Amino acid sequence: MAGNSFGTLFRFTTFGESHGPAIGCVVDGVPPLLELTEADIQEFLEKRKPGQSRFTTQRREPDQVKILSGVFEGKTTGTPIGLLIENVDQRSKDYGEIKNQFRPGHADYTYWEKYGTRDYRGGGRSSARETAMRVAAGAIARKVLGDDIKIRGALVKMGTKEINRDNWDWNEVDNNPFFCPDPEAVPVFEEYLDGLRKDGSSVGAVIEIVCSGVPVGLGDPVYDKLDADLAKAMMTINAVKGVEIGNGFEAAELTGIENADEMHLGNDGKPVFGSNHAGGILGGISSGQDVVVRFAVKPTSSILTPRKSIDIYGKEVDVVTKGRHDPCVGIRGVPVGEAMAAIVLADHLLRHRAQCEGWNTNKHFPS
Amino acid sequence: MAGNSFGTLFRFTTFGESHGPAIGCVVDGVPPLLELTEADIQEFLEKRKPGQSRFTTQRREPDQVKILSGVFEGKTTGTPIGLLIENVDQRSKDYGEIKNQFRPGHADYTYWEKYGTRDYRGGGRSSARETAMRVAAGAIARKVLGDDIKIRGALVKMGTKEINRDNWDWNEVDNNPFFCPDPEAVPVFEEYLDGLRKDGSSVGAVIEIVCSGVPVGLGDPVYDKLDADLAKAMMTINAVKGVEIGNGFEAAELTGIENADEMHLGNDGKPVFGSNHAGGILGGISSGQDVVVRFAVKPTSSILTPRKSIDIYGKEVDVVTKGRHDPCVGIRGVPVGEAMAAIVLADHLLRHRAQCEGWNTNKHFPS
Amino acid sequence: MAGNSFGTLFRFTTFGESHGPAIGCVVDGVPPLLELTEADIQEFLEKRKPGQSRFTTQRREPDQVKILSGVFEGKTTGTPIGLLIENVDQRSKDYGEIKNQFRPGHADYTYWEKYGTRDYRGGGRSSARETAMRVAAGAIARKVLGDDIKIRGALVKMGTKEINRDNWDWNEVDNNPFFCPDPEAVPVFEEYLDGLRKDGSSVGAVIEIVCSGVPVGLGDPVYDKLDADLAKAMMTINAVKGVEIGNGFEAAELTGIENADEMHLGNDGKPVFGSNHAGGILGGISSGQDVVVRFAVKPTSSILTPRKSIDIYGKEVDVVTKGRHDPCVGIRGVPVGEAMAAIVLADHLLRHRAQCEGWNTNKHFPS
Amino acid sequence: MAGNSFGTLFRFTTFGESHGPAIGCVVDGVPPLLELTEADIQEFLEKRKPGQSRFTTQRREPDQVKILSGVFEGKTTGTPIGLLIENVDQRSKDYGEIKNQFRPGHADYTYWEKYGTRDYRGGGRSSARETAMRVAAGAIARKVLGDDIKIRGALVKMGTKEINRDNWDWNEVDNNPFFCPDPEAVPVFEEYLDGLRKDGSSVGAVIEIVCSGVPVGLGDPVYDKLDADLAKAMMTINAVKGVEIGNGFEAAELTGIENADEMHLGNDGKPVFGSNHAGGILGGISSGQDVVVRFAVKPTSSILTPRKSIDIYGKEVDVVTKGRHDPCVGIRGVPVGEAMAAIVLADHLLRHRAQCEGWNTNKHFPS
Repeated sequence: MAGNSFGTLFRFTTFGESHGPAIGCVVDGVPPLLELTEADIQEFLEKRKPGQSRFTTQRREPDQVKILSGVFEGKTTGTPIGLLIENVDQRSKDYGEIKNQFRPGHADYTYWEKYGTRDYRGGGRSSARETAMRVAAGAIARKVLGDDIKIRGALVKMGTKEINRDNWDWNEVDNNPFFCPDPEAVPVFEEYLDGLRKDGSSVGAVIEIVCSGVPVGLGDPVYDKLDADLAKAMMTINAVKGVEIGNGFEAAELTGIENADEMHLGNDGKPVFGSNHAGGILGGISSGQDVVVRFAVKPTSSILTPRKSIDIYGKEVDVVTKGRHDPCVGIRGVPVGEAMAAIVLADHLLRHRAQCEGWNTNKHFPS
Repeated sequence: MAGNSFGTLFRFTTFGESHGPAIGCVVDGVPPLLELTEADIQEFLEKRKPGQSRFTTQRREPDQVKILSGVFEGKTTGTPIGLLIENVDQRSKDYGEIKNQFRPGHADYTYWEKYGTRDYRGGGRSSARETAMRVAAGAIARKVLGDDIKIRGALVKMGTKEINRDNWDWNEVDNNPFFCPDPEAVPVFEEYLDGLRKDGSSVGAVIEIVCSGVPVGLGDPVYDKLDADLAKAMMTINAVKGVEIGNGFEAAELTGIENADEMHLGNDGKPVFGSNHAGGILGGISSGQDVVVRFAVKPTSSILTPRKSIDIYGKEVDVVTKGRHDPCVGIRGVPVGEAMAAIVLADHLLRHRAQCEGWNTNKHFPS
Repeated sequence: MAGNSFGTLFRFTTFGESHGPAIGCVVDGVPPLLELTEADIQEFLEKRKPGQSRFTTQRREPDQVKILSGVFEGKTTGTPIGLLIENVDQRSKDYGEIKNQFRPGHADYTYWEKYGTRDYRGGGRSSARETAMRVAAGAIARKVLGDDIKIRGALVKMGTKEINRDNWDWNEVDNNPFFCPDPEAVPVFEEYLDGLRKDGSSVGAVIEIVCSGVPVGLGDPVYDKLDADLAKAMMTINAVKGVEIGNGFEAAELTGIENADEMHLGNDGKPVFGSNHAGGILGGISSGQDVVVRFAVKPTSSILTPRKSIDIYGKEVDVVTKGRHDPCVGIRGVPVGEAMAAIVLADHLLRHRAQCEGWNTNKHFPS
Repeated sequence: MAGNSFGTLFRFTTFGESHGPAIGCVVDGVPPLLELTEADIQEFLEKRKPGQSRFTTQRREPDQVKILSGVFEGKTTGTPIGLLIENVDQRSKDYGEIKNQFRPGHADYTYWEKYGTRDYRGGGRSSARETAMRVAAGAIARKVLGDDIKIRGALVKMGTKEINRDNWDWNEVDNNPFFCPDPEAVPVFEEYLDGLRKDGSSVGAVIEIVCSGVPVGLGDPVYDKLDADLAKAMMTINAVKGVEIGNGFEAAELTGIENADEMHLGNDGKPVFGSNHAGGILGGISSGQDVVVRFAVKPTSSILTPRKSIDIYGKEVDVVTKGRHDPCVGIRGVPVGEAMAAIVLADHLLRHRAQCEGWNTNKHFPS
């Protein structure tokens, strides 16, 4: 059934295939009178854009977004915002050989079985090209969240190489082609990924998104918990195989004594947490601490090394994918993960305004 | 906003607090003419029921489910199925001391901040007692799936103790109080958990759900992917902090060469996969392999060891939770995880019937 | 698919059959800290209750509602409110004869064809008994709307007999068994309906709902317009065949000059409308005037006069319905229509809070 | 909140303003392998296109639709279909004078109050220009329904002039500028509307949509009834103030004896109805008879005759609307009503496939 929309109050719907004429989306439910220009969106698209280093696909897409509706005299009007990006650099001939083959680990086979057809050019709808529209929608979500809520992402692991968290520097993230926050890890990643590219292989990665300034109270238990929506959001990103909140899987190893985030009173009389094992979410509702989400991206299945597979005629074949592909799709997953986090938070901000704000005034403390 | 429903075509809505008169749910969208009795549901509730060993809460709830509607002469009618379980063994006095305190790591604080009020008795709505209704709805979901789709769960890790996968035996799972598939791990878990109970602590766990017999084609890209819905489903379960599909976070460490699930033709001419790194889902759509989901449960925050916190009046306090609690809530998470997986699959089975079945007939291969 | 819920932010889901053990509903999305008791709901159920005069069905149902969740210490908590009414006076034997027959004009035939089965006792799920839960949910919706928004309904036409609008007196509505606002029409309706009952027939009616105090700005164009949601809401009520807003079908006969609701400035400098042809809704958004909705109810198809039909075995039969039925179901449609209007308005009040309130501050006038 | 989508399984979302660069929509949930070209859609857009006679607005829009996604090699792929129509003939200067004025009976005032801003050019989002996308989506819905289900509309009343139903001829509908099925009424309508145009006025209309070949069983009680969704669908169309199913408001005047649609067995042993007062829907589910929906359209509020109103600065003004407007918007409402009916039916066809088809096999009769 219809499955190309995300969010409830801040809701967006995307369309478009990798090698069709354009990709686009509709962002609905945006509050009125927010300042919004194409440049506001373009800024984030630039981060995700392909072909910016030798570590991402060499496809050259300007990814120039056009606002088709919902903005008047520089401000949102409350009506749906239509966005469009034309596809420019499609080389469909690259796909001639795998037109009838199922790349192992790729959506080729399952799309074919589900729909009885597929647009094989560049992966069609299953291409990560779709994520450009998420980044665009995410830029609008950030406008809804305002400047006090900051959403930042970083690549913390690539294959078997991990960053040193003691070196974490947010300013470093935009200074290298990996969105890596640890300057010492950058040359390690470079050498590692160059080696994999030469081997005709690819590699996975782990991305961490940190949302600071999130007010306490966002999230709707029990089925629309903030962490549940974040988990879903991240898992919809191409190639993601795992999601964690806060300590994540490590929490399974801890005792209740170790895992408790103790609370104190700060100098301003407001609650202060002594730690953030929970990743800023308790019972599905934001606690006011940083919301921390991590997700694991598998290695691209489109590789130059031959793999055994079958084709649509039922023959066994060796598959080699010659198109232009990201050796580590996780890298460009950073701005996409940020965007999805922004979208989930914007949605829950509006949800909280609807049901609770102004009504939840029984509280003795804290004010 | 309204957030107590899950699913789209197979959709259920729960209500009820830990110490209110009853908990209940409505399951809507169930196909007609499925055989369904209270005993069919009770069977699964028994697995989740508290007080069955010294390793779960000692609260004694018979958890006797009543079907109030939607079933006529032993079969479903296609109308909504109302289910009710009366709460019997509420000892609200246990909660007197923590009535005004925020247990560290618990939803106490965030519910208070979000709603300006909370039913503090037994955690109110945030209690894992709500999961009984998930298990009940899951039993109905299994009817929709039919006998060919099997959904089984097991506890594979408790704190720092892990099972040996070479010993995996599904028949063992129901023979021990941990839903542990490795008979050699059982005594290890027993001793480990006894020690933690004596220390007034608790511990986390990892649960694995395996769905076999799932047909190829379930899942709606790009935002209602099967894995995305599974991730959301598991993350809505109390205390869950991480979700993985197939290899999960380990996939981030692999190369594309290693991670590819190669395909061959079986003796019957049908596709066979050489491995299942993907956990049975490609591009958000089931591949016909086993669907494998894992989730991490944090340790219960309700422990006997004092922890620092604050109360609703803005005073710093030491919190000790004296109620009857699970030292490892992960254990009872096994039947709940199974239920959520069944619900997600039933929903997607109906979704696939709506849009694709009968229309997806262009396929050359496989038939 | 799942179709037993209504509303998005203020959302309720009902279940239950006419002759099952109970009917119930879950109301989700209710703001916290609203005062709510069972008596607040019971007050409205009393208006709809059967057996209160010779002009409604003689079934004796106390319709005593129980709140099962979502309310703590007399106030809502923001969690879902579970409501239950036990069925007490089911006389299923009344239905023995029509068990296998399709009453002409009744849902008997279509339920049978759609689901391949039906609970024939008292109409099962298609019975108007379900509307008791709408009235209960409507009582909660009124709490959300607050005291300044008033929702009142009246029966303005029964069969060929109409009220004289010059006699309209809201105080009269609760003084007669017809919810009739015109005291002079009451004896006319009495005599007319007595005659129809004696003839073993039934008759239709028109109900008008007037919502006053509705703030300007409620409604979400273009597909969730306030009038569109009201139209859907009313059309879901059993036996309703038409819905109008404001002038309704009469508007089709008017010219643009006649139909324009001119605007002026009141003494307080606020906009005043010279007329209300539009029924308080412009472009799908409330204008601040009274919201006026009318709906037409067809005559009950369950009558004592024999009608030609067929049975489930494919035989032609004469159908006579001997159960206890309303000779004019439109009468009890008045509190149900009020409830549905309250629910739609509560939903849109929350929707407007989410997207617009606080952001829509660019206005020069009016403040 | 987000309100620019319609439908659940067959779901479309529109965007765009009257004088923006383009309008567009995304149609999601379309089954795969349906043949679909731009010409298939264009055919229906031609019917709605402005400027085709002196009785509709003189704005010249080619309304040329582009398919941006979801179709591959001439067939749908099951992925979202993006559609775009560029706006060509915007004369925004026409609107200079009413830029700051609220046209009586128009959405000007309510949009301003709701959002605190509005795109005043040509009515912005509230313009009936949006309905072009409904017609486009409706063309796709017809593909889902297949050739056996026919959806046809006609204008049956204009102002005080009505057709003679004895003259009804579907072939006549496309032969006159009014979509009028009665050839004798055409000259009457012409003279009447010419008079109104010269007077600087406008007039309302009633449109009737007849859907034949609809299978029994479509519709989901109790809140997603087929008639409820049709009522909502029609009421979302600009200027609609009333909706009827079958007899509609006339049913309120009938007795149960008169209103019963008696059933018989046809020569083929299948059920035959003796009449169709119900308009093809019983208990919210299609009965297999023609589904008949009527809706009333009010006269355009944009007229040349001055009307009293206020402006955004709080001054009383005389409003004259000089733009190019339809003297009877009801005329172009015919293809829009057809499209909405097709969309509702396509949605319910998919819904029925999901829950019932294949499961509802208990039926003794009819097969």
